[in-house]
Amino acid sequence: MPDMQWLDGGITAVPGILASGMAAGIKPSGKKDLALVYSSAPARAAAVFTSNQVKGAPVVVSQEYIRDGRAQAILASSGCSNVCTGEQGIRDAREMTKTVGELLRIKPAQVLIAATGVIGQPLPMDKIRAALAKLVKGLSPQGGRSAAEAIMTTDTRPKEAALRIEIGGRPITIGGIAKGVGMLEPHLATMFCFLATDAMVASDALPRVLKRAVDGSLNRITVDGDQSTSDTVAVLANGLAENAPLERGSRGLREFARGFEAVVAKLASMLVADGEGATKVVEVSVRGARTRREALLAARSVANSPLVKTAVNGADPNWGRIMMALGKSPARVAQDKVAISVGDEALVEKGMLKAGARLDKIRALMAEPEYSISIDLGLGRGQDRVWTTDLSEEYVRINGKYTT
Amino acid sequence: MPDMQWLDGGITAVPGILASGMAAGIKPSGKKDLALVYSSAPARAAAVFTSNQVKGAPVVVSQEYIRDGRAQAILASSGCSNVCTGEQGIRDAREMTKTVGELLRIKPAQVLIAATGVIGQPLPMDKIRAALAKLVKGLSPQGGRSAAEAIMTTDTRPKEAALRIEIGGRPITIGGIAKGVGMLEPHLATMFCFLATDAMVASDALPRVLKRAVDGSLNRITVDGDQSTSDTVAVLANGLAENAPLERGSRGLREFARGFEAVVAKLASMLVADGEGATKVVEVSVRGARTRREALLAARSVANSPLVKTAVNGADPNWGRIMMALGKSPARVAQDKVAISVGDEALVEKGMLKAGARLDKIRALMAEPEYSISIDLGLGRGQDRVWTTDLSEEYVRINGKYTT
Repeated sequence: MPDMQWLDGGITAVPGILASGMAAGIKPSGKKDLALVYSSAPARAAAVFTSNQVKGAPVVVSQEYIRDGRAQAILASSGCSNVCTGEQGIRDAREMTKTVGELLRIKPAQVLIAATGVIGQPLPMDKIRAALAKLVKGLSPQGGRSAAEAIMTTDTRPKEAALRIEIGGRPITIGGIAKGVGMLEPHLATMFCFLATDAMVASDALPRVLKRAVDGSLNRITVDGDQSTSDTVAVLANGLAENAPLERGSRGLREFARGFEAVVAKLASMLVADGEGATKVVEVSVRGARTRREALLAARSVANSPLVKTAVNGADPNWGRIMMALGKSPARVAQDKVAISVGDEALVEKGMLKAGARLDKIRALMAEPEYSISIDLGLGRGQDRVWTTDLSEEYVRINGKYTT
Repeated sequence: MPDMQWLDGGITAVPGILASGMAAGIKPSGKKDLALVYSSAPARAAAVFTSNQVKGAPVVVSQEYIRDGRAQAILASSGCSNVCTGEQGIRDAREMTKTVGELLRIKPAQVLIAATGVIGQPLPMDKIRAALAKLVKGLSPQGGRSAAEAIMTTDTRPKEAALRIEIGGRPITIGGIAKGVGMLEPHLATMFCFLATDAMVASDALPRVLKRAVDGSLNRITVDGDQSTSDTVAVLANGLAENAPLERGSRGLREFARGFEAVVAKLASMLVADGEGATKVVEVSVRGARTRREALLAARSVANSPLVKTAVNGADPNWGRIMMALGKSPARVAQDKVAISVGDEALVEKGMLKAGARLDKIRALMAEPEYSISIDLGLGRGQDRVWTTDLSEEYVRINGKYTT
């Protein structure tokens, strides 16, 4: 296991990565709303996008651009998502990448693009056109925080993480910024996670490392089960560490992947803790399922159940709701084999309240801001886990009382 | 189309049907909690139950009893669901049907049983044993309302419906009572719908009529997407109308089914209007799907989306959330073909805000207690619809602040 050293800062902790954030006037509030991440050296790149069938124009354009596995910049805006905007939206997204490409002297297709915010409205292109030169001029090795701020919507704080890891005797840095989580913002917001590394990673390895890291953390957090039309995760790997290329199947790549997953997981935990109206973060782990897939389905059913989530909000050890949520999941469940614990405290055994379960202790555990619910289905060896939040009155206020 | 005449009252509007409701002390509040419906003549019966894999003991016992297609009584309790109670729960349920059967001089298997309320706790059998003779003694042709009250949990009002229809020159009566809807109660409650008719229905036709009526209405209402472990719908058909038996494929059966569906649909609309914390009832209809199944999946995805439901609560014409919910559904969606209306007002065309959409008018429509959202996917001929409620702060209060 290689040494991992957490660093201050985020994406610009990575050598050769510059960033910039500014207020272009997209947000009526006047807050920062335009962010740029730039690698001074050409970079390999990989990205994953929302699986929603309704996709924003920036997603459509970035999906096209990423096909060659290379990118040198990520341009992101907040306040207007450029979703459901038709051909005009596609043209606007292309124009933005073209302008930034010209300013950076790279091709438009080297500029990935992402947007979050109100949907169904065209981007205020006049304001954006007026801002892009300043955005590029503002690029700096200290600009990571500013970029992290410029992608925020209902996030209450910017999210950054970075670490250094030694691979084959060379220090490698991995950093990232993120925003939102699983449909958080009043107007259809979005999860962004932008990552960078100075590692030289074989071109066929980077998409796999990214996909695995996303599956292991970002795809396992849930706030409300809804799914944005703009979710985008992207990584730039510029190779400035001059390490021997990390090839598929190599020990070096495994070590890199571990560090990479740690950064993504840290950002994911920041996202879920900042979920809309969230007062708790709960790990729901399931073992004893027939398959890993069924373990995940069962965990998701519990984690997304409004009745479980309101019980979590009320710190109520209402295990019947967990049984209900398990029973309605597509995973096979035999009710008389189910065991449930909260933290280390056994609550349910053989599908019934465990004799002598210490409910007072469990209530106290559930009053904590973070704890785990562990479920054993008693049927097989499949296990998986997800992270969820509670469903609070504040969530309803944020999402219901907003008016266009 | 035969004449339908709505009647006052509910299940005891049906000739030969008696009912009774009383407080047995299961509910700490002292409210009514024990209900009995009885047909003075032997009856054909059919029932459908929750599809949750975790099932209450009464569901297990009733599923066994209904196999012969006959029943003469329905015994229902509220306040304690007898779910997750192991072998003792099964024994308790059987004992209750045995006692009532002895008092009514029918076999235990002629007594269907249902329970709703707290889960994981044994029924207070001493109190129930002490009450059953009084419950049977209380049976009366005016007892329908009392039975409807005795099955309530967080329902704010009892639900009854009855109508008369003429089939082949003979008047036929159909009546029912219902409670709850789709996981409403703080402790895992339940939807019950108990129906009766004096029609003589062929034994192989009754289960089909019931299933079709349930699919058309009760299975298309949703409050929070959660699913009780105790849902039970049952019908008794005692044949006292002395009509010619309604055989499968006959015109008479079709006419009967239409009346039966009207009663079930009326009860369903009462259920959704009384959903926990609900301030609105919204019909979500989808057409233009590739198949009817996909239309239903798309409608459900919209109807269950927390973001759509909070927008409904806030009367916010946030059509982007509807697009998002369509896009995440398993149904095929092509975003540039989607059209959405609220009431008769067009809102979205070709996946974008319709030019000239009258948002003020739509906001006013959404302030009404009932309205429809109509979606055209533009892909095929599949259509279906569901009814949903908004997600209110009150829902979270009801479900979160309750402590055991």
